[in-house]
Amino acid sequence: MTSGEFTLEARCGSARAGTLHLRHGDVMTPCFMPVGTVGTVKFLTPEDLRAAGAKIILGNTYHLYLRPGTEVIDAAGGLGPFMHWDGPILTDSGGFQVFSLSNLNRIEEQGATFRSHIDGSSHLLTPEKAIDIQAVIGSDIMMALDVCPPGNADRETATDAVDRTLRWLIRCQARWDEKVQESGSRAGLLFPIVQGASFADLRLESARRTQELADWAGIAIGGLSVGEPKQVTYEMLEVLEPVLRPDGPRYLMGVGYPDDLVESIRRGADMFDCVAPTRNGRNGTAFTSYGQVNVRKAAFRTDFEPLDPDCQCECCRNYSRAYLRHLFKCGELLGHRLLSVHNVAFLLNLVTRARDEIIAGSFESWAADWLERYRAGP
Amino acid sequence: MTSGEFTLEARCGSARAGTLHLRHGDVMTPCFMPVGTVGTVKFLTPEDLRAAGAKIILGNTYHLYLRPGTEVIDAAGGLGPFMHWDGPILTDSGGFQVFSLSNLNRIEEQGATFRSHIDGSSHLLTPEKAIDIQAVIGSDIMMALDVCPPGNADRETATDAVDRTLRWLIRCQARWDEKVQESGSRAGLLFPIVQGASFADLRLESARRTQELADWAGIAIGGLSVGEPKQVTYEMLEVLEPVLRPDGPRYLMGVGYPDDLVESIRRGADMFDCVAPTRNGRNGTAFTSYGQVNVRKAAFRTDFEPLDPDCQCECCRNYSRAYLRHLFKCGELLGHRLLSVHNVAFLLNLVTRARDEIIAGSFESWAADWLERYRAGP
Repeated sequence: MTSGEFTLEARCGSARAGTLHLRHGDVMTPCFMPVGTVGTVKFLTPEDLRAAGAKIILGNTYHLYLRPGTEVIDAAGGLGPFMHWDGPILTDSGGFQVFSLSNLNRIEEQGATFRSHIDGSSHLLTPEKAIDIQAVIGSDIMMALDVCPPGNADRETATDAVDRTLRWLIRCQARWDEKVQESGSRAGLLFPIVQGASFADLRLESARRTQELADWAGIAIGGLSVGEPKQVTYEMLEVLEPVLRPDGPRYLMGVGYPDDLVESIRRGADMFDCVAPTRNGRNGTAFTSYGQVNVRKAAFRTDFEPLDPDCQCECCRNYSRAYLRHLFKCGELLGHRLLSVHNVAFLLNLVTRARDEIIAGSFESWAADWLERYRAGP
Repeated sequence: MTSGEFTLEARCGSARAGTLHLRHGDVMTPCFMPVGTVGTVKFLTPEDLRAAGAKIILGNTYHLYLRPGTEVIDAAGGLGPFMHWDGPILTDSGGFQVFSLSNLNRIEEQGATFRSHIDGSSHLLTPEKAIDIQAVIGSDIMMALDVCPPGNADRETATDAVDRTLRWLIRCQARWDEKVQESGSRAGLLFPIVQGASFADLRLESARRTQELADWAGIAIGGLSVGEPKQVTYEMLEVLEPVLRPDGPRYLMGVGYPDDLVESIRRGADMFDCVAPTRNGRNGTAFTSYGQVNVRKAAFRTDFEPLDPDCQCECCRNYSRAYLRHLFKCGELLGHRLLSVHNVAFLLNLVTRARDEIIAGSFESWAADWLERYRAGP
């Protein structure tokens, strides 16, 4: 198989099971990508991630560009060697963080000028620069620079974002064409991003015009899960599903929570990333087969059962609810680590189970049962 | 071998190599015990500790008594099962933290009344209670409650501490005799503690009177490394070495840094504990064969060598100085974890090496060379 090839193995309703062949290994879809913002999935080693079932992780271009910077990453031979991860990596374009995290000065046709959230230094992120940085990082999948308006954007803002995202995509593609020709290039596949906020016709237009530009190895759906109601996310997925080419993976950016994953797989999405498992883990919130649970709860004081009896992760194999509660009550950061391991493993097990059910043809009924149980709570 | 038996295998000058047979496994000496204050060696799992070479860990009775409390530990079946550590555990008596950490109200003959540093609640720690708590914890080695004056204590304070420590030891021993008779008891061995501050004659008196009381399985040297100059610590060890019974292990409490360990092994001490490896690790300070080093240093920016090329720990096998620097610059707690692993492994490797050199008869020259290299720094 050549890098970027996608094998669609089964469908069940709109849900899909496939395999994406990447330079650093195959990724079975649906897949969840733990987020390693600055070259570390907080608290966890690559060995922890492997043991939890991770096949591909995500890096944030904005953060990595600011720290440690492309010079250090280049000298290390790319992000993988730098952080001791030998599997596939996907990077975002940096745009989302520029819009949400930095002090954004202005967006012009050339690119986005922003000040670093760390030291206030001024930078210009252009489509070309987003590609250049990701080529240094050496991610297996790089993202085109897009304009990502807030979830409640008005029609004009959303239209402008779609148009500029398409113009920037053409520039990204041109730079990417150059980069992949360079000898010793670490440039990976390039995915474009569909925008359009919560306007169905704009989403359709964005998808159509994006797909007309090239035979992309995969396509991302951006600008969702950014403040709009969940029902809107689901509606946009339903609108897009019939028009997105079936022979490539669809990456729903920034999603999500366990039930979001099941709902989105149900609507034809294949790839996901989110800080939810690690961020919630650090807050003491665990995803379990009986719903979300706060491990500080008094009922866990002398409860020596595993956090989730259905889970075989390092946390659930070795530690009790009472011990996890104790760690969080004492502010002991081993608790953050163990709950991060569990939540990541939970999402990875969930997408693996969804894949099995899709292949078995039983996804729809399984998903309905699973969602009911999860939402019922403890 | 019965629990508590100590086999002295080799001597080299005053340095000793032995094996201490404990309920949960054999411990080769000299040994270093990583400190798991509230039932967790900060950031590390028992698997990490095993991989780093740990055979025995230390728990703090004061902290465990306050959180999670004896009721929870008892219900878990002891501290080992609670924290998922199946090896030997040593616990202190709680006295040191009562004197140093709590709001101490008063010390009377009955015991020490203190207020919790967490919630201000009032508690009385008596010799009997120190034994009762440690019996619930189920440590392989429990410590008698002692009075630990500051390193610069005057002669009267030091004399009173020696006398009261001996009277409390008799009460601890009586309670311990009862506890070990109880069916299903988790009470382990009892070690007494020699006090005497920096007064050689008081140290000798404390050791003599302590050893006259019983045929202890081992003996601890307390009240050192509590603010006095290091030279005083070494002098007290030299004073005690000839009078301490050779057929039991000598535990030097709260020591130490790498060079302290070598200096103390040289003077006949066998067992050590200290938070130095983990606390320094969290501060970004690493112990290495070329001295202490701050991993944030600018020279590490693009240095892709392991932290210590002589070390085979998880951190040094998998990560570079540049990556560790990056983690600490970003405040990423994986850095705390990796440096804690390294520093703990460094001390464990150091005592193992010292043991090998003692058995080979080459300890003295090795120790001199090692100290010179370590103290020379990077």
